[in-house]
Amino acid sequence: MFSVTVRDHLMVAHSFRGEVFGPAQRLHGATFIVDASFRRPELDADNLVVDIGRAAQQLGDVLGEFNYRNLDDEPAFAGINTSTEALARIIADRLAERIGAGEFGPGADGLTGITVTLHESHIAWASYERTL
Amino acid sequence: MFSVTVRDHLMVAHSFRGEVFGPAQRLHGATFIVDASFRRPELDADNLVVDIGRAAQQLGDVLGEFNYRNLDDEPAFAGINTSTEALARIIADRLAERIGAGEFGPGADGLTGITVTLHESHIAWASYERTL
Amino acid sequence: MFSVTVRDHLMVAHSFRGEVFGPAQRLHGATFIVDASFRRPELDADNLVVDIGRAAQQLGDVLGEFNYRNLDDEPAFAGINTSTEALARIIADRLAERIGAGEFGPGADGLTGITVTLHESHIAWASYERTL
Amino acid sequence: MFSVTVRDHLMVAHSFRGEVFGPAQRLHGATFIVDASFRRPELDADNLVVDIGRAAQQLGDVLGEFNYRNLDDEPAFAGINTSTEALARIIADRLAERIGAGEFGPGADGLTGITVTLHESHIAWASYERTL
Amino acid sequence: MFSVTVRDHLMVAHSFRGEVFGPAQRLHGATFIVDASFRRPELDADNLVVDIGRAAQQLGDVLGEFNYRNLDDEPAFAGINTSTEALARIIADRLAERIGAGEFGPGADGLTGITVTLHESHIAWASYERTL
Amino acid sequence: MFSVTVRDHLMVAHSFRGEVFGPAQRLHGATFIVDASFRRPELDADNLVVDIGRAAQQLGDVLGEFNYRNLDDEPAFAGINTSTEALARIIADRLAERIGAGEFGPGADGLTGITVTLHESHIAWASYERTL
Repeated sequence: MFSVTVRDHLMVAHSFRGEVFGPAQRLHGATFIVDASFRRPELDADNLVVDIGRAAQQLGDVLGEFNYRNLDDEPAFAGINTSTEALARIIADRLAERIGAGEFGPGADGLTGITVTLHESHIAWASYERTL
Repeated sequence: MFSVTVRDHLMVAHSFRGEVFGPAQRLHGATFIVDASFRRPELDADNLVVDIGRAAQQLGDVLGEFNYRNLDDEPAFAGINTSTEALARIIADRLAERIGAGEFGPGADGLTGITVTLHESHIAWASYERTL
Repeated sequence: MFSVTVRDHLMVAHSFRGEVFGPAQRLHGATFIVDASFRRPELDADNLVVDIGRAAQQLGDVLGEFNYRNLDDEPAFAGINTSTEALARIIADRLAERIGAGEFGPGADGLTGITVTLHESHIAWASYERTL
Repeated sequence: MFSVTVRDHLMVAHSFRGEVFGPAQRLHGATFIVDASFRRPELDADNLVVDIGRAAQQLGDVLGEFNYRNLDDEPAFAGINTSTEALARIIADRLAERIGAGEFGPGADGLTGITVTLHESHIAWASYERTL
Repeated sequence: MFSVTVRDHLMVAHSFRGEVFGPAQRLHGATFIVDASFRRPELDADNLVVDIGRAAQQLGDVLGEFNYRNLDDEPAFAGINTSTEALARIIADRLAERIGAGEFGPGADGLTGITVTLHESHIAWASYERTL
Repeated sequence: MFSVTVRDHLMVAHSFRGEVFGPAQRLHGATFIVDASFRRPELDADNLVVDIGRAAQQLGDVLGEFNYRNLDDEPAFAGINTSTEALARIIADRLAERIGAGEFGPGADGLTGITVTLHESHIAWASYERTL
């Protein structure tokens, strides 16, 4: 199995609801370093998993929808805790939709899975892994 | 599949028995940077894999049993080589016991796996992965 | 010249005023990975720059005053842009005050300088360096 | 499942054929930071996955065949794009051959898989994972 | 003293002349992770060292002149060894020229120094520091 | 001013004397990731700060005198606390002696300073800087 990963980042404000979050129930923020990995069992005709420039552009576009925002004000996140693990899934699902819609190019048909990892600090990170 | 990882560290002395270890048969030491990952297929009601503060506390407690010690003098390790890979398993198993004993809280019932990675330097690390 | 550095982190929301900030004029947030370095020309009687446990505790206390907060709501920051470089200075100055007040212990008399670096992402960071 | 990983690096020139590569069709180069992971379900009699010194030596030998070279001039790569993902497979396959030939020592019989990851920059990397 | 640093990267081929270079006399290549630091004693009216977006853009433009190229073929480098330390100076000098030409904006008048660091691998890097 | 840095590591056991060290008074150990930086105002005839292969070899030789040892048993360290900052100085001084003795080659005459940084974990490091 092959994979290619591209890294970008996201700077957002948000707050959490629930006693388990302690002081993180207050409005605060995070830089998320975001690693998006694309998997497939065999390489395409160019010997690639995915056009890495296009993958980086698509990841940037997905992150651009959230970047420099307060997630508490975004209708898409109304009523949910935007935990690191939940954001990892949202980003992975949006990348999967774009692959399905052909935005990664025809060679991306061979992709079989995605993993998205969000690093919230140097001592904590979360991932979501799915098939395509 | 979701995962959350927390990082901590451990500073110990130890020595190895066996020709394969060369100069590491002498008493020496290591800083192990320890990454503990917790996995589950679905998030809990708070949209979490695990209460990250509690996970960090539990990892710190497990490492605290070994930290600033000479592992050669610990009865728990009598007669075994405390290699990086063997320590990864010991730490993973102790975390699993604590999850089973309810020390990660009721939400941790949904956890299905753990991976523990110990970095012994910038050029070498070892992992142990298990189910719960 | 000797130095010792300890690392911690901070998760805050804030916004900026001024066209130069573009989309960062919106309320957003950041994880700042914070490195505090302490300098002195000669070591103390214990062969140390500073008691590292005490330095880590003091840095954590300074960061605790801002952590999990919206800096826009903090009276201390009213009317100023809490840029990464400005925060580096604020943290360095608060550490310097605590050294002056004896909170780093008597051995800390020999410290002659501090540098504080805040990493706002994997591709951008800022520092402030001062004497004591 | 246990794993041990060793890191080394490789500095090569190469060029790509295909419009998808854009400016990378020109002769350019890369430092690849190479992580080779070795897996097995149970440790050997010394409590090891693999003799780490021997693994590092073998990885260095495999990389030494390419290091400080222009891959476009190497007969082994004639007619193929030496993409990061393709190089990950080539290195993994060569390590597998050496394990099969006994060059990792008798204890290496228990190895069941390899993953090789090549980091081409701080924002992009690729992996190939295979069984033994 | 304040500083702000931005990171980007560069992928080039080159070769060296001189026995001291050993196998690096052959045509090979490198990824250089490039950190450009800008210094000034006091912040500007926006509480900044430099407009970080503009600094990142300018660094990208300077690196774009070399990226995905064989430095042996560039007239600018004819007859010189493009060692990591020499490239650090070339990049720093080009950034200084652009600051002098007003391309970093009017606020950049207050900048007093630059340091450029090029990481050629995880175990080697070089810097050049200059005043403005 | 130019600098070149090479990284290596060291795995040792030791203990400290003095109440300030708390549990680190017990025999324990550390991996020190060691960065040795060499400085000079102008490059040599090959456009280098120092022959990087020779610098890496010399650093490895200096670290080899301590590696896989219990520093408490080394006559050179009798009666002193081998703190991270103290070890940084010892390593810097030994490198300076070797430069003075000509072991870095004739081009190394132009070196004017050294900085040695020892990382004891992902959250703590210490440096010693000296002239030559």
